[in-house]
Amino acid sequence: MDHGGQPSCAGTIVLRLGYSGEAYSGFAEQTQPGVRTVAGELRKALETFLRREVDLTCAGRTDAGVHALSQYVSFPAIDGELSIVQTRWLRAMDALLPRDIAVQEVFRAHSDFSARFDALARTYTYRIADRPNRPVLTRDHVWWQRMPLDEEAMDSAAQHLVGEHDFKSFCKMASAVGKPTCRNVMSVGFERTEELGEEVLAFTITGNAFLHSMVRTIVGTLVEVGLHRREPSWVSEVLAACDRRTAGPTAPACGLTFMDVAYPPDTLTPLA
Amino acid sequence: MDHGGQPSCAGTIVLRLGYSGEAYSGFAEQTQPGVRTVAGELRKALETFLRREVDLTCAGRTDAGVHALSQYVSFPAIDGELSIVQTRWLRAMDALLPRDIAVQEVFRAHSDFSARFDALARTYTYRIADRPNRPVLTRDHVWWQRMPLDEEAMDSAAQHLVGEHDFKSFCKMASAVGKPTCRNVMSVGFERTEELGEEVLAFTITGNAFLHSMVRTIVGTLVEVGLHRREPSWVSEVLAACDRRTAGPTAPACGLTFMDVAYPPDTLTPLA
Repeated sequence: MDHGGQPSCAGTIVLRLGYSGEAYSGFAEQTQPGVRTVAGELRKALETFLRREVDLTCAGRTDAGVHALSQYVSFPAIDGELSIVQTRWLRAMDALLPRDIAVQEVFRAHSDFSARFDALARTYTYRIADRPNRPVLTRDHVWWQRMPLDEEAMDSAAQHLVGEHDFKSFCKMASAVGKPTCRNVMSVGFERTEELGEEVLAFTITGNAFLHSMVRTIVGTLVEVGLHRREPSWVSEVLAACDRRTAGPTAPACGLTFMDVAYPPDTLTPLA
Repeated sequence: MDHGGQPSCAGTIVLRLGYSGEAYSGFAEQTQPGVRTVAGELRKALETFLRREVDLTCAGRTDAGVHALSQYVSFPAIDGELSIVQTRWLRAMDALLPRDIAVQEVFRAHSDFSARFDALARTYTYRIADRPNRPVLTRDHVWWQRMPLDEEAMDSAAQHLVGEHDFKSFCKMASAVGKPTCRNVMSVGFERTEELGEEVLAFTITGNAFLHSMVRTIVGTLVEVGLHRREPSWVSEVLAACDRRTAGPTAPACGLTFMDVAYPPDTLTPLA
């Protein structure tokens, strides 16, 4: 394809990216000078590898300290970039990225694909350690609560959130001004698991999209229920109030991991 | 109990300790000046809390970079120390220890108990990520192998190690000189699990005791089999040779976690 001197846009490159959030001021597509972000590190690596500027779009902008198992990032491909093989991508990105960021998989998509606008659903997991002894091996991946949490109460409270609602009460106040705050939460659930041998209470939530700090405010609110400071039904009152001041505190960033994104079937093709 | 001015030894205090090994030159009961060790940090915290010197004995001396979920450490109690309640211990140790070391549980034992000599069995887990994409969230807890490993071959190789054997081939050479190198391996096994959402091949081994670098040399040897560079039966030849030079390389420390110690029943009583 020749578009008369313009670089031809043959499609979109999509990266599935994992990272540890501790050292970064969030994902932050728009890098600010002097601020270390995941997007900044990724852009630097891509520009070294592809020898050109790239403009990144991500599925979900994670806050400072939040981790990702599968963040998706897209940018338009030019020229022969789509014929670079998977192995070469992985080796190059491995060499160019710091050890707390790693490309997990590389895909191609059609030329107007956007990691953000084509996403059908996002899944986050929030991990809590609710016990008197302090977690060590998972210390950067959990919120430590000394008191045991009543997970059944939390689960029944969380069920009030499922469905299409105005989640303004669960949105960082400054971010909710003049913006739509309706979202569709598709599923919520708690599970007791072991991570690196340490017991963890994991809350997983899937929705079409999330407001700023929404998952962390939901978790902070559910923990109030888990500590028996509030009844499970209180959560529906908070929801109805459409006022951030009615919800619980924002849970710390380190417990949160961006787990996965769902795209329409056949949208992403893994590079050979 | 009054022993005429001598501090009475009413029993032994036993701590179950977790730690992340990255920042330490091993557990190292005997602290050397200028070297940061887990035992050094623990001793400092205990001496601040108890206002006296303590002499620590551990169940297993872990090397630099090796983690622990349940290391056991004992020291003789004096005076009223055994009546300090669990909660107070945990709160004090939480405040005094760095965030990569944490006391998980405190027990009392009889006065001639030793965390080292009373241990019946020790269990270690070694985690490997065998895939082309680099691990991120578990990066400090796995050995990354780009090539997939044949876990069935590794498992059948590992079975040769079960039982009472001379493990001289799997002992750091300098440490084997003039010392008994027979050990009893009680069980070995592989399991594919997920840790923090990342797929991991975990090797777990239980034995009465382990030689210096024994688990890591076993893993380095089994990986040769998993990569099809050697047959599973090669492991029994290595064992029979009683020569470290016949075994595989020593696997890196970061993949190894000291998981648990077994003591005779009713030996340890959790503090109230």
